[in-house]
Amino acid sequence: MSDPTEPAPGHAAGGQPDAGHADGAHPGPALPAAVHSGAPPLVAVDAMGGDHAPDAIVAGAVAAAREHGLRIALTGRPGQLRPLLAGLGVTAHGTAGHGSGRHGPARHGAEPGEIWLVPAEDSVDMGEGALAGWRRPRSSIAVACQLVRRGQAAAVVSAGSTGAIVATARLRLRPLPGVARPALAVVLPTRPGPTLLLDAGAIADPKPEMLVQFAQLGVAYAQVALGIAEPRVGLLSIGAEPGKGNKLARRAHELLEADPPHGGLPISFTGNVEGGDLLAGKVDVIVTDGFTGNVALKTLEGTAAFAGRQLREAIGGSRAARLGALLQRRGLRELSERLDAETYGGAALLGLEATVVIAHGAVAARGAAVAVRLTADLASAGITDKIRERLGPARGAHFLRRP
Amino acid sequence: MSDPTEPAPGHAAGGQPDAGHADGAHPGPALPAAVHSGAPPLVAVDAMGGDHAPDAIVAGAVAAAREHGLRIALTGRPGQLRPLLAGLGVTAHGTAGHGSGRHGPARHGAEPGEIWLVPAEDSVDMGEGALAGWRRPRSSIAVACQLVRRGQAAAVVSAGSTGAIVATARLRLRPLPGVARPALAVVLPTRPGPTLLLDAGAIADPKPEMLVQFAQLGVAYAQVALGIAEPRVGLLSIGAEPGKGNKLARRAHELLEADPPHGGLPISFTGNVEGGDLLAGKVDVIVTDGFTGNVALKTLEGTAAFAGRQLREAIGGSRAARLGALLQRRGLRELSERLDAETYGGAALLGLEATVVIAHGAVAARGAAVAVRLTADLASAGITDKIRERLGPARGAHFLRRP
Repeated sequence: MSDPTEPAPGHAAGGQPDAGHADGAHPGPALPAAVHSGAPPLVAVDAMGGDHAPDAIVAGAVAAAREHGLRIALTGRPGQLRPLLAGLGVTAHGTAGHGSGRHGPARHGAEPGEIWLVPAEDSVDMGEGALAGWRRPRSSIAVACQLVRRGQAAAVVSAGSTGAIVATARLRLRPLPGVARPALAVVLPTRPGPTLLLDAGAIADPKPEMLVQFAQLGVAYAQVALGIAEPRVGLLSIGAEPGKGNKLARRAHELLEADPPHGGLPISFTGNVEGGDLLAGKVDVIVTDGFTGNVALKTLEGTAAFAGRQLREAIGGSRAARLGALLQRRGLRELSERLDAETYGGAALLGLEATVVIAHGAVAARGAAVAVRLTADLASAGITDKIRERLGPARGAHFLRRP
Repeated sequence: MSDPTEPAPGHAAGGQPDAGHADGAHPGPALPAAVHSGAPPLVAVDAMGGDHAPDAIVAGAVAAAREHGLRIALTGRPGQLRPLLAGLGVTAHGTAGHGSGRHGPARHGAEPGEIWLVPAEDSVDMGEGALAGWRRPRSSIAVACQLVRRGQAAAVVSAGSTGAIVATARLRLRPLPGVARPALAVVLPTRPGPTLLLDAGAIADPKPEMLVQFAQLGVAYAQVALGIAEPRVGLLSIGAEPGKGNKLARRAHELLEADPPHGGLPISFTGNVEGGDLLAGKVDVIVTDGFTGNVALKTLEGTAAFAGRQLREAIGGSRAARLGALLQRRGLRELSERLDAETYGGAALLGLEATVVIAHGAVAARGAAVAVRLTADLASAGITDKIRERLGPARGAHFLRRP
């Protein structure tokens, strides 16, 4: 097994033949040096995942690279990606450039960003599930994960099928020491600040001990990405008292109240929260099993969409339709943005050697750019190191500090 | 054990001393004959349960009795209930009468209804949980259940603590043959028709077999209360495919696809549904475990409330506040009513010898009246007989027809 911290300067990633040759394109430039070289971290972007891939993903990645000076490796079919990049004014030598006249120059003071193209001849359809992790070793998401294993990329982002991404990442990326299973973390648009919910569906039948690990993952995320110094952690259950809940929740409650194992950092556990508290902002991190978390998240999204439809119907059906249209412009847009996944970038699979951000399958270019930015921010802030620290020296001492 | 079908004519129910004597009231009239005597079924109303009990409950029960000609037994402290009844113009001889001048006469053509007062010296606080079932054998909810066991009442309704009601009912009422545990069923305000969700929290760790029983309970409810001839049943999970979900959901899926055990009637099982489908109207009955169901239901309620608050904020913060107020009157009221528990009467605990309706703790008189009406309708339609039929002759043959 190769050392992921070993730089691979000049190594053309992926190892697949560049099909781009066949239709006249030339191979991509050599990938930059590895994660710890001091340069901004490289983000591996699965250009082929998503309902509107590759167009929306490439456009979002280029926009993010230009606006925030990011370094991005796009994985996918060169024959499809090169024309898209050319159309966006991205030069062949790997920098995002200053854009074509149509897109205008990069903002003054911002780094221009850099984009590499890493060939991946296969891709995963949106309808495919977890089996794609094994069946498609040369998919764009698998190649993106390989960039991490080779020490070239620091994080991965994809808008593909959640099941396929989770399975591929679990197969191709190593778990952090002390993490039995990674968890899917989703930011809920609560007020005044956001709340992180995990696991939102990575593992349907976790052990109670895993929920304590999820709490550590969530605390690290909340500190790094949400800027909360000491995040409060709640356990999703069906009553405030410790004895309330199913067997899993009752045992997890006991474990969360005890000292973390393996010398892990203490957790500010505030007790149980209920489904009605998901948007109440009572805590910063809510932990639960992936079955309950997924049902709760989809219930939340479905109810928000239902409320929106009902309101539009009520407005449309009344004589106040014109006034309603006015109001919609002013008020409803803000509401729908708060409940819109595109504004907070997507779910994050936490607990592997690199963070994998899963954007909503339906993202357009703007949502893809937000997701790429989130991925870069998590990598820059060193979230995996933070997680190693939180999980305790007894488990991950030799990973705590890089040379 | 007494035969619940045995009438107890003239028997003053409850057996507790009537504390009403102490403050000058006189004992209630003899209760009517038992359920199967041909008269409309008697509904036992826990007058002391709820945030606004006993005032709102008594007012709601009296209104329901007057409007729909119901026969009601109010259980609670006579010293508190008598003045309330007197204030509402209810005569001492047990009929709801035609109301005082303040409330106006009963509607022309409606039965006046009848109200009995059954003393219960104890009551359960809203903060109390399941332990109240054992600790308070003389509570108003326990006495209401005793009226069923004595064959006097056909159903029970309470706005008290859900945990205490479920525990009391499980302790004092017999399960129907073939029902291992009763389930809590809640009607969701989907369009075009409603959807029934169960279990919404009666048992946190059911066996997979119980979910099949829940499906039978739900189908019976949907037929009787929602008027759906052949209800479609979905299983709440985290993906459409049969293999998706936790162990419980995967096994329940297999069982729901197979023939019902014990010669039970077939179920129109359509497969898995997800959290986002709760309000989509895809199926008529959604079955799940009580943990997931409770989290989903509270998430749904919390999100609807959140969306409403966000919209009010957005409206209030804009210059269109006046227009917004107009719209609120026309559109939001309808929306909030659709998502308001008061309009659909409350949850129903199904699978015991009598149905127990649990109204929302915060109900005002109007909501209490809706819940009392729902309870009476379920009893009149013979929902427990329907459940016996659905669960199959191999289990409950001797209960199928009453003498």
